[in-house]
Amino acid sequence: MNGSDSLTERFILEMEKKIVNGEYDINTMLPSFRKLCDEYNVSRSVINTAVAVLNTKGFVDIIPRKSVRVRNWKKQGTLLTMNSSIALGKLEPETVDSFFDIFAFIQCNGVYEAASKATEEELIQLGKIIEQEALLKDEKKLAALYHEFYKKIADISGNMAYSQVFMSLEQAIYAISDIYVPDASAKQQCMKMHNNIYQALKARDGQKARWEMQALSDHLKVLVEYKTSNLKRK
Amino acid sequence: MNGSDSLTERFILEMEKKIVNGEYDINTMLPSFRKLCDEYNVSRSVINTAVAVLNTKGFVDIIPRKSVRVRNWKKQGTLLTMNSSIALGKLEPETVDSFFDIFAFIQCNGVYEAASKATEEELIQLGKIIEQEALLKDEKKLAALYHEFYKKIADISGNMAYSQVFMSLEQAIYAISDIYVPDASAKQQCMKMHNNIYQALKARDGQKARWEMQALSDHLKVLVEYKTSNLKRK
Repeated sequence: MNGSDSLTERFILEMEKKIVNGEYDINTMLPSFRKLCDEYNVSRSVINTAVAVLNTKGFVDIIPRKSVRVRNWKKQGTLLTMNSSIALGKLEPETVDSFFDIFAFIQCNGVYEAASKATEEELIQLGKIIEQEALLKDEKKLAALYHEFYKKIADISGNMAYSQVFMSLEQAIYAISDIYVPDASAKQQCMKMHNNIYQALKARDGQKARWEMQALSDHLKVLVEYKTSNLKRK
Repeated sequence: MNGSDSLTERFILEMEKKIVNGEYDINTMLPSFRKLCDEYNVSRSVINTAVAVLNTKGFVDIIPRKSVRVRNWKKQGTLLTMNSSIALGKLEPETVDSFFDIFAFIQCNGVYEAASKATEEELIQLGKIIEQEALLKDEKKLAALYHEFYKKIADISGNMAYSQVFMSLEQAIYAISDIYVPDASAKQQCMKMHNNIYQALKARDGQKARWEMQALSDHLKVLVEYKTSNLKRK
């Protein structure tokens, strides 16, 4: 790989910000390649790559011989557009709702499957995550640990779709964790609920594990809704 | 856009085929850029773009200053890897299972929401799709019509995640339709079930619409499993 990768990534991020914030509005054309080159001081090859990536995610359509049009990405984008928009801090109620709906689906079904499928080794690994949670103080590391806990459950389920939906929303999941991790009582509550889920898995009780996961997801959703509406009021 | 786009797309497709078929195995490095240039007769800029797209989808990891490694995409890829692998004809039972699990989730919940949310105008549009279905003979057009029917329901639900999961799996949904559309009795059955769903929506009966959608999804899954296991036996 050449040295321009991080430049390309930064340029993609800039474009995504403008699309998500509506500065580049849906159904309008992006500025011409020449203008983009000038404005962002990037080469045509960086723009080519960026446009291909934005198209893959579902943010833009490439109109042959014309230009690039911003897609109505909320309806015509892939899950990667939701991922980016949440990671960029767009937390409108409808987005938070949609996010938790699909998150609860993969995690509740995932944990139900995991209860019968987890090997003893996998249960031990989950147990270690739970132990670390009680000890960690660093918020970034804690968010990473939550991520690991949820991802492991999706993987243990053996359902490709659960792991892949998780990965499609990975940056969003981090961003959502960042919202509640700094709250001491939320952290305490999460730890307790994670432990309940772990105990249900150890008992191979899929129904209980699913119920606990649903309770956790609902709890997080309310918390995130509260925090984000508070942010707006400030 | 320049004229190399379709070249880039073809190159990406070639790479995806080799990854999905295991010719480029997970956790191994892709050939060097120089080798890829020679082997596929493409420029370095085409490869740069292709690698960025494959990374966005979740097929590869970019190792700075080293090379590109094939990711364990079934667990670490996004839904776009499932989309590509099904579109490329990889229809192992676990993949078909995962696909229908997530498809049923978005469509069953989508249709339930749609029953209360659909405007009269939207119901008329769905009715027109149902009418066309009964008249169309062309298989390709019929697959496009099925696509339109399912997508419209996801959109009417108002849940961004349902529309976006659908779009993430768009090519897979076409590929799955291609499997059952050529079967006359399957087509007949689909038409009947689509009409049942439409009638339930018109009656604003969300529970019934959901039940009918679940029955349809289960029916399609059995059909696809049967057809794909038949293909293997031949």
